[in-house]
Amino acid sequence: MEILSTAQADFEPRFQALLDDARETTARVDGAVSAIIGEVRAEGDAALLRLTSRFDGWAPEGVAALRVTPQQIDAAVASIEPGLMQALDTAATRIEAFHRAQLPADIDLPGTDGVALGMRWNALDAVGLYVPGGKAAYPSSVLMNALPARVAGVERVAMVVPTPGGALNPLVLAAAKRAGVAEIWRVGGAQAVAALAWGTESIAPVDRIVGPGNAYVAEAKRQVFGRVGIDSIAGPSEVLVLADARNDPAHVAMDLLAQAEHDEAAQSILITDDAAFAEAVIREVEKALTTLPRRAIAGESWARHGAVILVRDWDEACALANRLAPEHLQIMLDDPRAVFGKIRHAGAAFLGRHTPEAIGDYVAGPNHVLPTGRSSRFSSGLSVFDFLKRTTWVQAEPHGLRAIGPAAVLLAEAEGLGAHGASVQIRLDEMQLRR
Amino acid sequence: MEILSTAQADFEPRFQALLDDARETTARVDGAVSAIIGEVRAEGDAALLRLTSRFDGWAPEGVAALRVTPQQIDAAVASIEPGLMQALDTAATRIEAFHRAQLPADIDLPGTDGVALGMRWNALDAVGLYVPGGKAAYPSSVLMNALPARVAGVERVAMVVPTPGGALNPLVLAAAKRAGVAEIWRVGGAQAVAALAWGTESIAPVDRIVGPGNAYVAEAKRQVFGRVGIDSIAGPSEVLVLADARNDPAHVAMDLLAQAEHDEAAQSILITDDAAFAEAVIREVEKALTTLPRRAIAGESWARHGAVILVRDWDEACALANRLAPEHLQIMLDDPRAVFGKIRHAGAAFLGRHTPEAIGDYVAGPNHVLPTGRSSRFSSGLSVFDFLKRTTWVQAEPHGLRAIGPAAVLLAEAEGLGAHGASVQIRLDEMQLRR
Repeated sequence: MEILSTAQADFEPRFQALLDDARETTARVDGAVSAIIGEVRAEGDAALLRLTSRFDGWAPEGVAALRVTPQQIDAAVASIEPGLMQALDTAATRIEAFHRAQLPADIDLPGTDGVALGMRWNALDAVGLYVPGGKAAYPSSVLMNALPARVAGVERVAMVVPTPGGALNPLVLAAAKRAGVAEIWRVGGAQAVAALAWGTESIAPVDRIVGPGNAYVAEAKRQVFGRVGIDSIAGPSEVLVLADARNDPAHVAMDLLAQAEHDEAAQSILITDDAAFAEAVIREVEKALTTLPRRAIAGESWARHGAVILVRDWDEACALANRLAPEHLQIMLDDPRAVFGKIRHAGAAFLGRHTPEAIGDYVAGPNHVLPTGRSSRFSSGLSVFDFLKRTTWVQAEPHGLRAIGPAAVLLAEAEGLGAHGASVQIRLDEMQLRR
Repeated sequence: MEILSTAQADFEPRFQALLDDARETTARVDGAVSAIIGEVRAEGDAALLRLTSRFDGWAPEGVAALRVTPQQIDAAVASIEPGLMQALDTAATRIEAFHRAQLPADIDLPGTDGVALGMRWNALDAVGLYVPGGKAAYPSSVLMNALPARVAGVERVAMVVPTPGGALNPLVLAAAKRAGVAEIWRVGGAQAVAALAWGTESIAPVDRIVGPGNAYVAEAKRQVFGRVGIDSIAGPSEVLVLADARNDPAHVAMDLLAQAEHDEAAQSILITDDAAFAEAVIREVEKALTTLPRRAIAGESWARHGAVILVRDWDEACALANRLAPEHLQIMLDDPRAVFGKIRHAGAAFLGRHTPEAIGDYVAGPNHVLPTGRSSRFSSGLSVFDFLKRTTWVQAEPHGLRAIGPAAVLLAEAEGLGAHGASVQIRLDEMQLRR
């Protein structure tokens, strides 16, 4: 953990080092992945069966066994305690409502000059949702990825999830059921991505693949990009907390650790204007690290990537926040909206002293799939926009073409594109003749 | 050129072959490109000077010579005939108006339960615009790439354009001036992309790079993706024309050729319900191919990738159009909107008999940078959305956290994330104590 102060002479190089801290070391798996994709393309279902036996430690008896049955889904739901099912439903209801508010309107400009213009949004036909197996199988991620697709109007959402040792994860199945996902395949890894992109005898291809995964899954998504769309490939998680001394240091410490417990490569940063408060937070972090269940992971993240930055005022803090462009930003100040107004780059913001980032991970409503590694400078969290695309349109009446056609002809000729110009000019000539 | 009919027994495999037609053969240039990027990262401006001498055939006298001066821009504008400047202005004015109509509204949900939610759009800080040099230097592309960024509110648009042999392209500079782009660098290729992504002593880095380029530029964009955002990498252009026998075959033929003249790999397809009309269009294409300035290119595109498909009705045509998911779609029918209502996948549509696609390339208003190669199934044309990103936000009051916090705690515990749950629970416990 590093302690910096903007008052120090060496602040700028130290802050720059923090910005340049490449927390991810990606394994090179491109060769292995392209071999797997090749097998699935060549052999379809047979390759899926063989690769599932090899990598997931169970041997499906034929292709039918790869599809999760409605009975298996119902049994999963029945096995979950009602309070937890209720929590899942609260989360889903709020996520749906927020994403419905994102749905954009079409544009329809009649035009006063004989040229009507517009833009229409359409949902994608089919989306594939990758859900990791094992310890990182998060029901909240199923909701966050599937619900925006459903709200956007995607007709077919096909989920793939590895079932290591053949074990189904009941909470993941329950989340899928609540999200309206009925097509679930027990395949994972690069082979699942290949099946979604290229299709097999059993699995129809999709148009876009979303959802988190390990290095093999990320590389497979990279390799099938172009044939299908993909979401951005997430790096380790981050939080930046702006907090003054009026906060409870224990609250701030736990907010920092909630991020750190995700992954040793996660990063938690506190910016404050009070040195004594900074010290109090650091002590609370150390205290909590003696008791937390995931203290080994959280402790390593805090030690390696954590930072506390002392600033002279909140304008200085905003300038640093914009350079960090964090995935998650907590603003724990008296007037959080005033400071938020000066923030240009952040994936998601959590305003005030009673809004720990964790409520955004589960139940607040906005998506928890967010841009990492400073990419909120140019990209955004998952949303209904990921499952919609636009078609623009133009409809010219004869007098409209007469009005704007000559400019098109001039520009086409200046660019040396004769048929472009001619396709407009022959129509203009004919109108001239008819007059 | 192929002629298909849905009435033929072998239609399905032949149509599938058309869908699978990979028109692009990308050269492998990744090694050369990563070497160039490495040089620019290590040496900055010095590498730009050396690489410009090597690849562009002129030797800039120092870094200052790489920046186009206001005097050079004004001289370029003065050299262009007024009619053409007027056409450029007509185009720019209409493009601006259409893209302004795209600007989305923020979301601000006060919430009735003590949890306010919202989403805010912000423009990117800085965007790089790649403009190809030489014969493919299109002023219309400068407008189509730069104006949406300006309309979105991007403060800094930095343009890079190679000047082979040292020659500036006056129309490109005039288009840049009209689009409000004042920062223009005379560099191109992978070195220009590297400079925009990583920055040099003279060129500040940007957040996203857009604009077309050759194989080196496309590969450089792929390699810097992640550090900065990039636009999608365009393949060869396509048009699909749906036309009945009430059209003039010469109009349809010229619309097909306007696409074919772009590139030998371009693809023009006609779908019609009238065999005699199809033959008339084919004859008109052959006739026009004897006179067009770019007949060699257009002829090769038509011969290799062109197709005419006979259908029994327009529903059948719509189904095929959705499978083709064309970049450009012309619907030359009496009621084009009824048929357009059945189209789910197309980059841009041109409705009616008086709307040749070429007016969309220049002056209609919607963007001409569009998804190719069937990718309109999952992606969209360039727009203000490419230059904006979203930050979601949540602000919970104490009673709001009391309402939704317990569900977050349950879900966090079910996922084994103890600090997530604790960050909510310690606040709930404290409120309990205070009551």
